[in-house]
Amino acid sequence: MTSSLFDFHLPHAEPSTLVAFAENSLDRRSEYRAADCVEAAFAAANVHAFAFAGGKLVVKHDEQIVDPLFAPYELASLDPIADEAILLGYLKNGEPRLAIPVKADPDTLHEPLRAADGRTLYRQQMLGDDLLGQFAQASSLLTWNLNNRFCGKCGGANRSEIGGYRRVCEACGHTIFPRTDPVAIMLVIDIERDLCLLGRSPHFPEGMYSCLAGFVEPGETIEHAVRRETLEESGIRVGRVRYHASQPWPMPHSLMIGCYGEAKSFDIHRDEQELEDCRWFTRSETAEMLERNAATGAVSGTTSPPPKGAIAHRLMRDWLDWS
Amino acid sequence: MTSSLFDFHLPHAEPSTLVAFAENSLDRRSEYRAADCVEAAFAAANVHAFAFAGGKLVVKHDEQIVDPLFAPYELASLDPIADEAILLGYLKNGEPRLAIPVKADPDTLHEPLRAADGRTLYRQQMLGDDLLGQFAQASSLLTWNLNNRFCGKCGGANRSEIGGYRRVCEACGHTIFPRTDPVAIMLVIDIERDLCLLGRSPHFPEGMYSCLAGFVEPGETIEHAVRRETLEESGIRVGRVRYHASQPWPMPHSLMIGCYGEAKSFDIHRDEQELEDCRWFTRSETAEMLERNAATGAVSGTTSPPPKGAIAHRLMRDWLDWS
Repeated sequence: MTSSLFDFHLPHAEPSTLVAFAENSLDRRSEYRAADCVEAAFAAANVHAFAFAGGKLVVKHDEQIVDPLFAPYELASLDPIADEAILLGYLKNGEPRLAIPVKADPDTLHEPLRAADGRTLYRQQMLGDDLLGQFAQASSLLTWNLNNRFCGKCGGANRSEIGGYRRVCEACGHTIFPRTDPVAIMLVIDIERDLCLLGRSPHFPEGMYSCLAGFVEPGETIEHAVRRETLEESGIRVGRVRYHASQPWPMPHSLMIGCYGEAKSFDIHRDEQELEDCRWFTRSETAEMLERNAATGAVSGTTSPPPKGAIAHRLMRDWLDWS
Repeated sequence: MTSSLFDFHLPHAEPSTLVAFAENSLDRRSEYRAADCVEAAFAAANVHAFAFAGGKLVVKHDEQIVDPLFAPYELASLDPIADEAILLGYLKNGEPRLAIPVKADPDTLHEPLRAADGRTLYRQQMLGDDLLGQFAQASSLLTWNLNNRFCGKCGGANRSEIGGYRRVCEACGHTIFPRTDPVAIMLVIDIERDLCLLGRSPHFPEGMYSCLAGFVEPGETIEHAVRRETLEESGIRVGRVRYHASQPWPMPHSLMIGCYGEAKSFDIHRDEQELEDCRWFTRSETAEMLERNAATGAVSGTTSPPPKGAIAHRLMRDWLDWS
C-alpha cells in the first residue's frame, strides 16, 4: 500500500537503522517500573550487567572475543556502586539487563579485563550492533546520573530511582529525568555546482573532514538550527532543509539529527575558532574519500571521511547514491 | 534548480515555520559572547527586556495592546534579579534583547501589568509570532537557569555566565549548558483504511484529542522513539516513520519532533495510566473536528483538536491536505 506521506526516494529502508549505536532490542519499560525494579533485576536468573570504570566500559577480552557482560558474582571484585545501578530494560526472554559504575581503576585492570571508551568501541567494532546500542543507552544514563548527584534547585542530595531513570532530591523533592541533547548535523549541498560543504575541527584525526554540526538551542526548530549553525561556522546561507536520519551519540548523551541543507550562497567565511578548514567538495572527491577509507583506512597526506557508522558518513554516502 | 534530495511533496514551504513559538528573528550569538555581554547589553541605547515573575511573563496590557517589553528604568519597581539576566540576542539593528526574572508577585501586579503563562500567551494569541518565539527562548532558558542554581556534581553554587547560556560551579568548575528535551510526537496513519490515531490525556480540555507523544530516551533514534511510544500508549505497531516538522515547546524546554507513522496493526490496547481514550478517526471526522474548531472553538459534547499553532494540529491538517 502506498501513500504520498511515505512516498519518498530512499536508497534503503530507513537511514537511522544504518548508523552506529542505533540498534537496541531491549524493552526499556522506563515508565512502568516498580520502586524495587533494580533489586528484582539483580535477583533474576541469568541477569547480566555492563560495568563502567571511570566512564569506560569494562570488557573481558581475548584474541577471539570481547565480552562486555558480567554476571553479578563477577562484579564483586570490581567494587560496584550498588546505589547507582542502571536498569536498561529486558531482553525478549524477560532477562533484565543492567549497567553499574564500579570503583575499580580502569588503568590497572588485570587481563582478561580491559576498559574502552565509546569512540574506541565503535571505531574498532569491538561489540555487535545490539550490544553497542545497549552500551550507548547505558553510557548516556550513567553520565547523566553521575553529573546529577546533587539537586540543581537546592543543592540537596539526589537519590536514583527506578533504575536511574529518575533522580529525586532528598531535601526538596525536586525530580529530574535523563537528559538527551539534540544536535543538528548537516550536509549542505550546492545543487547547481554539485558540491557538498565539509569542515575540519582542530580536534579531528589528521586529514578528516566531516559535516558541520551544533546543538539545537532552546526555542528554535531543527531547520532553524541547521541554518544558524551553518551560517555561523561557514558563512553559507541555507534555504531548504530536509531531515534524513537520526543517531544516538553517547559522548556524553546527544541525539544527532542529520539533515540536508540547500546552499543559497557560495563564498565561505569560516569561523576560525571552530574550524581549521572548511571547503566545498565535488561529488568525485567525496566518493574517492569514502572509497579510499573503506579500502585502506586513513592515508597520510589525503583527506578522510568520518568513520563508517557516523551519521555524517551516512549523509555523505546517501548524497552520492541518492541524487 | 531541483534535486531529488529536496524533491518531496509539501502543501507549503516548510511545516516547521507554521507552528507557534518557531519564529524568532534574534541573532543569538550564543557561542561568541564576552564575559561582560549582559552589562554591555543593559547599557545599550533602546535596550528592552522581557520580565518573568514566578515563571510567568509580565505584560503591559490594555484593551488594544499587549506589550511584553520593558526598558531598564521600568524594571526597577518589579525588583529584578540582576545576576540571572538572560541575553537572548540582538535585533537586526544591533539592539540587544534580554529577559530577567523579577521578585514581584505575579498575582498582585497593578494595572496595566499582568502576568501570563506560555499556554495562555499562545492560545489567546497575545503576542505576535516573533515576540512569541523570543518568549519561548526566554522562558526555556529561565527555567533551566532557575533549576540549576547548584552544581549537580558537587552541590556547590553555580553562577550564570554569558547571559544564561552557561553555568559554572564556583566550587569545582563543572560547566553546564542549556537543556532542550527532544519529544517524538506522531500522527499514526492506517493507510489502507484511511484513518489516523488520536488519544486523550486526562489533563486535556474537555473533548480534545491529539497525537500521541513522548520523550526521546537516551540511546534511541527518533524513529525508534516513535515506534516505542506508540506501542506503549496504544498497542499499535508502527512501520515506516517520516519526519514532518519540529517546534520549540517552552513548557518547560522541549523540542517537539513531529512525525508520521505507518500503522502495521489495528487493535488498540490503550495505556490506561496515560490515556483516557485512544481511537481511530476517519478523514472526515478529522476534517470536521479541525473545521468546527476554526469556526466556533470547542463545542460541548463534540471532539476538538489541539489549538492551531500546535504541531499536532499541523500534523492532522497536513495529513488531510497532503495525502
